[in-house]
Amino acid sequence: MKLWRGGCLATLAGDRGWGLVDDGALLVDGGLLRWVGPAAELPPEATNAEVVELRGALVTPGLVDCHTHLVYGGNRAHEFEQRLHGATYADIAKAGGGIRATVAATRAASEAELLASATKRARSLIGEGVTTLEVKSGYGLDAATEARMLRVARQIAGVDVRTTYLAAHALPPEFGDADDYIAAVCQWLPGLHAQGLVDAVDAFCEHIAFSPAQVARVFEAARALGLPVKLHAEQLSDQGGAQLAASYRALSCDHLEYLSPAGVQAMAQAGTVAVLLPGAFYALRETKLPPVQQLREAGVPIAVATDHNPGTSPTLSPLLMLNMACVLFGLTPEEALRGLTVHGARALGLHDRGQLVAGQRADFCVWDAGHPRELAACFGHNPLIERVRHGIQGGS
Amino acid sequence: MKLWRGGCLATLAGDRGWGLVDDGALLVDGGLLRWVGPAAELPPEATNAEVVELRGALVTPGLVDCHTHLVYGGNRAHEFEQRLHGATYADIAKAGGGIRATVAATRAASEAELLASATKRARSLIGEGVTTLEVKSGYGLDAATEARMLRVARQIAGVDVRTTYLAAHALPPEFGDADDYIAAVCQWLPGLHAQGLVDAVDAFCEHIAFSPAQVARVFEAARALGLPVKLHAEQLSDQGGAQLAASYRALSCDHLEYLSPAGVQAMAQAGTVAVLLPGAFYALRETKLPPVQQLREAGVPIAVATDHNPGTSPTLSPLLMLNMACVLFGLTPEEALRGLTVHGARALGLHDRGQLVAGQRADFCVWDAGHPRELAACFGHNPLIERVRHGIQGGS
Ligand SMILES: [Zn+2]
Ligand SMILES: [Zn+2]
Repeated sequence: MKLWRGGCLATLAGDRGWGLVDDGALLVDGGLLRWVGPAAELPPEATNAEVVELRGALVTPGLVDCHTHLVYGGNRAHEFEQRLHGATYADIAKAGGGIRATVAATRAASEAELLASATKRARSLIGEGVTTLEVKSGYGLDAATEARMLRVARQIAGVDVRTTYLAAHALPPEFGDADDYIAAVCQWLPGLHAQGLVDAVDAFCEHIAFSPAQVARVFEAARALGLPVKLHAEQLSDQGGAQLAASYRALSCDHLEYLSPAGVQAMAQAGTVAVLLPGAFYALRETKLPPVQQLREAGVPIAVATDHNPGTSPTLSPLLMLNMACVLFGLTPEEALRGLTVHGARALGLHDRGQLVAGQRADFCVWDAGHPRELAACFGHNPLIERVRHGIQGGS
Repeated sequence: MKLWRGGCLATLAGDRGWGLVDDGALLVDGGLLRWVGPAAELPPEATNAEVVELRGALVTPGLVDCHTHLVYGGNRAHEFEQRLHGATYADIAKAGGGIRATVAATRAASEAELLASATKRARSLIGEGVTTLEVKSGYGLDAATEARMLRVARQIAGVDVRTTYLAAHALPPEFGDADDYIAAVCQWLPGLHAQGLVDAVDAFCEHIAFSPAQVARVFEAARALGLPVKLHAEQLSDQGGAQLAASYRALSCDHLEYLSPAGVQAMAQAGTVAVLLPGAFYALRETKLPPVQQLREAGVPIAVATDHNPGTSPTLSPLLMLNMACVLFGLTPEEALRGLTVHGARALGLHDRGQLVAGQRADFCVWDAGHPRELAACFGHNPLIERVRHGIQGGS
């Protein structure tokens, strides 16, 4: 048993409030939180525990980044530069850029190369306190490369990884017809699932990607295997994707700038989490805001994630997303932190982490901060002192 | 002598372009760059130098953060939280918040406390490659505390610090009349200058701060001592501050969202640098953009800085400012990097740093990146491998 004591705990226990415990203690046993509370009320079994002094530091649950595209080849910095020199998205697409450039680079990369670059990125996330991470496929768009991406994601060390099959991300160049491609996407899934590579199934429902009818075919394939679904929904337009996803009791709908009131209600009834991605909103200079107040009023849990990807959200800072969720979307600091912890976990179907409560996993972060709101108020700043995952201190 | 070799150099030599040198080398002697160029063309004296292998890493000039308010007491995270719970700036000011809260906390802090907190912040900047840093006073607003702030700034270790006297930042509570306060500001300056605490003099010219006539009195006091001036100008409205500052041949005008065409021309003629502060623009959710294209056309050098302060720009990431300068203001990645190197130096009156050119100070950064545009294209990501200041490797 190990005892962390003498810190300010932001437990996020219950449904609202920081759940602050001044001069708090955490008793850890077998990778789980055995007891959490004021140090003055420690239970008798704490007597023999090895002690770690927190010296007044702040403790929060470990961060859960529930939406990333962390595995890919190449980078798209040259496109970023071209756009600032006046090139349009259309110019760049015509020159073979955009998502197609990443697909080509990912297909060309070996498993070892993909693992090396993804591991480096994961190190950055881990260095800001991430203990659980979702990784999507979707830059392979063929059976072999989608499998390679998912195998790489499973091998990222030092962090709990959940993998999501997102072959329905874009139409690959070798398919002329989106329906033909969707048939292939559905056909590849059972084999990947049989290899234990898939925790959830996702799709991109948008006028530049796939229609609700095509997404429904993918969701049917997931349902046949008992796999939960998620959806990139209403990012650029209202496609009714949220209602569709809710009808499959989706774990989450993600982006949601154009989410309709009917979509909000459908998500609330299905218990689907709204995953907000302020990094993409910022990088694309979007102005249409997700309906945060409606989500609140309907009781839809709100998660926040990096959406790390090489094109529209090349960020590796969950802490910056806390700040951007507040500054750009108007979340309160507490809502933002819940979004990157307990609600992020829920967006992955995980209920064993995200709060500092007895029985949960001992995944937590120790910060050089006096109050958890400081984590959201600053930007471009990393006050992490230590990260504990499954009761183990240190980076990995 | 020491030789760094085998890296990609972004020298920023000349007035435009990255100045890329593939497989480049830097020969350092006595804290200065003795020779910079392709490794294949190394001069004979390099033979006996101690060698550091760059292994293909990217080298840029050290970063110059030419506008910060790094020394202060307290923090304002609770105000950030209050605003997101619906409080207005007026509510917060009425409750004693805003800049007055920072002034009270700074006055209450000891020199040792101010140095400890400022040093911690400087460590974050240094950790992203900052080699030269400006620090302003302006949260004391009395003679003793302004002096204490400047003494603390001078003591920050591991980075070259330039200090700026900004007593004309806000009207302190014990003064009823702004003109009376300006008289005191002018009266305190010679003593601080005599103690060697002042490199430049700044003021906040704005309807919520001081008028151009009041700023002119401060500038006259600076001129009498031979001190260069700078100005917080046209952030919230066009006060004609840029023209005033240019008439004093100011080193820089900073913020500039409301800069007029006449202001642009005056700055161009005076050689005054435009310091853009995207962190404050972002945090305040401003929508009025500084006139970047006009500044370009007039040939005004553009710098970029963090404006670190506890209220409107609580960021410690110069790399994030590179990205925000591009995403929010439309600078090209090269313009943004020049803004945080050679033009940042120029905004401090320094011409001995900011480019990788023989004769300049050996202040440079080694990055895990393939091209300098990657530094601006990502956000919330720190690929610094090593920082060299005055030819010395390591953090301090
Ligand atoms: Zn995504
Ligand atoms: Zn300022």
